[in-house]
Amino acid sequence: MLTTPTPAILIDLPMVRRNIARLAEYGLTHKLNIRPHTKTHKSIRMARLQLEAGAIGLTAAKVSEAITMAEAGDDIFIAYPALDAWRTEHLAGLAKSRTVRVGVDSEFAVDAIAAAARSAGVTVGILVDIDVGLHRTGVQSPGDALKLAQHISRSGGVRLDGMMCYPGHIKAPLPEQPAALASVSQILREAMDLFERAGLEAKMVSGGSSPTAYQSHHTPELTEIRPGTYIYNDMSVVSCGYVGIEDCAARFTCTVVSTAVPGKFVIDAGSKSLTQDLRSKDPQSAGFGHVVEYPQAIITRLTEEHGEVDARQCEHRPKLGERVHIIPNHICPCINLHTMAWLNDGEGHSEPMTIDARGQIW
Amino acid sequence: MLTTPTPAILIDLPMVRRNIARLAEYGLTHKLNIRPHTKTHKSIRMARLQLEAGAIGLTAAKVSEAITMAEAGDDIFIAYPALDAWRTEHLAGLAKSRTVRVGVDSEFAVDAIAAAARSAGVTVGILVDIDVGLHRTGVQSPGDALKLAQHISRSGGVRLDGMMCYPGHIKAPLPEQPAALASVSQILREAMDLFERAGLEAKMVSGGSSPTAYQSHHTPELTEIRPGTYIYNDMSVVSCGYVGIEDCAARFTCTVVSTAVPGKFVIDAGSKSLTQDLRSKDPQSAGFGHVVEYPQAIITRLTEEHGEVDARQCEHRPKLGERVHIIPNHICPCINLHTMAWLNDGEGHSEPMTIDARGQIW
Repeated sequence: MLTTPTPAILIDLPMVRRNIARLAEYGLTHKLNIRPHTKTHKSIRMARLQLEAGAIGLTAAKVSEAITMAEAGDDIFIAYPALDAWRTEHLAGLAKSRTVRVGVDSEFAVDAIAAAARSAGVTVGILVDIDVGLHRTGVQSPGDALKLAQHISRSGGVRLDGMMCYPGHIKAPLPEQPAALASVSQILREAMDLFERAGLEAKMVSGGSSPTAYQSHHTPELTEIRPGTYIYNDMSVVSCGYVGIEDCAARFTCTVVSTAVPGKFVIDAGSKSLTQDLRSKDPQSAGFGHVVEYPQAIITRLTEEHGEVDARQCEHRPKLGERVHIIPNHICPCINLHTMAWLNDGEGHSEPMTIDARGQIW
Repeated sequence: MLTTPTPAILIDLPMVRRNIARLAEYGLTHKLNIRPHTKTHKSIRMARLQLEAGAIGLTAAKVSEAITMAEAGDDIFIAYPALDAWRTEHLAGLAKSRTVRVGVDSEFAVDAIAAAARSAGVTVGILVDIDVGLHRTGVQSPGDALKLAQHISRSGGVRLDGMMCYPGHIKAPLPEQPAALASVSQILREAMDLFERAGLEAKMVSGGSSPTAYQSHHTPELTEIRPGTYIYNDMSVVSCGYVGIEDCAARFTCTVVSTAVPGKFVIDAGSKSLTQDLRSKDPQSAGFGHVVEYPQAIITRLTEEHGEVDARQCEHRPKLGERVHIIPNHICPCINLHTMAWLNDGEGHSEPMTIDARGQIW
């Protein structure tokens, strides 16, 4: 690797397999389907590993991502209110050869998807997106979920498959969040009861997020979960206490390019490779990633191509030209900034891997 | 544009031409060379417009960017301590057919570049990077600048061309920053005097940044400036008082995808298209961009593909499916997230433009 350029993402394949296997086993134990979110890796190869380990299907955020991921799997859930002309047309097109479902929170979206589906001669599955506490998207009550479900069941071109939620507001492990988890459960249960009384079925109840993944059995309403980050992990999940640094399968290799300013060193990774994302916990003090070889160092400022690292608490500073490794705060948007990553097989061999869905924001 | 996907970047070509012409005229008036930083647009076409308007050459942050920009111009300055094996080898290669200069702050970097240049049979120009207050990179005193200049002048394969500085710490217009500007001037002047007494010449003194661009004549030591953002502008330069919203030539078009949560609307642009970058001024309160049609709205939270907008101060909320336009806080890393942009000619015609150097972080 000596003459390969930096910054670059290194992915440890045995660790990836371990992370995938651990969640697959959890799913088997608790009879929960796993539908991994592919926004994290944006890689057809990684999606295939997840499916081979028993994932029931794949999740995508955007329709363009789903189209790429259709190379890996034939059952794709778009966890996004895809309601504009471009997206509805393309997801209906995808539904000609794949099982396609979409999570939506409005009659407008249902009507737009239904019209595109009818026009393409296909049926698209719909999950009612219900807000369980993040307050980003999602209908606001079990009663509103029922109303939307009834609208779906009356529409041609779409099929009511159930509900989805995204508990992105829960960022600490049990037992710190029992009230928040109980509230998720209660909202879903009430909606399911209303559906049942109205003669509708929520066959699928899809939850998600890597932080809450291993707490999912405390929400017995769920039939499946959609974690993404768990395949690689990052400092955000580490700082929340879910995994250790030894579980982080993706790291950056960077070169030290300046040590001119006292107490500091500068790496060749800035906001255009690491992103300005902070950690979920201690966002202000923890800096923009963890320097593996210099754990006392703090990445204090990122400009576009420079990462400034405060080394005053370190025993010594790295030398110019030295390579250091960084575990990013939030791996998902970092991966999206890179065209390729190096996949290490754990036995000293590396090969380039394309980030297939990089930049697919449509 | 009705069935084109969102989010997308729209660029107003007449406004681009005006922004370029205004700086070109300033340069002529004050006998300052303009060497635009191409990290902002990462576009060969935009670089050509800048050169046609009289720019003396181009600036790049990374060597990979410089290689792409060599299609537009034959004189390129890499304002980055490019000292690793991959970069020195590739910049020496580029120097076979182009005038290549690099800004460095260490003997280590000089030696690495000199060795690669000698091995390729070329000469690379070097500017001594001197810290004028940002404390990111740069030698720490005029005396250290002289020492590095002497080292360069004794080395084969490299040629001492002068000095560079980056006054990125100055973020407000005159007369708010007279002391900071005077200090930049004094540091450069002292170094130039030392060079002269030692029989060395600083033919080029390269300053930079869009925020300080139109204050450059207050630093009479400069022979050239390297602004980047000025071609498009963004809410950071607007919030600092340098330009108005009417000077922002690049904006996002987004679709409203959810209005389920009261007081809010959600756009289909999140951190994977807008970035988490805050404004230079009022970073905490101003949000993640300016919504043109709803100026009272605040983009309060970005997750990867969702932008949550607080609309409580707006007279009304946009409808589902409505397109709104956003001026980002920091246009440079946004452009880098997009594969293409739409170039509008001001007469109703749009054409796609590739972001040629997107993702070139090496």
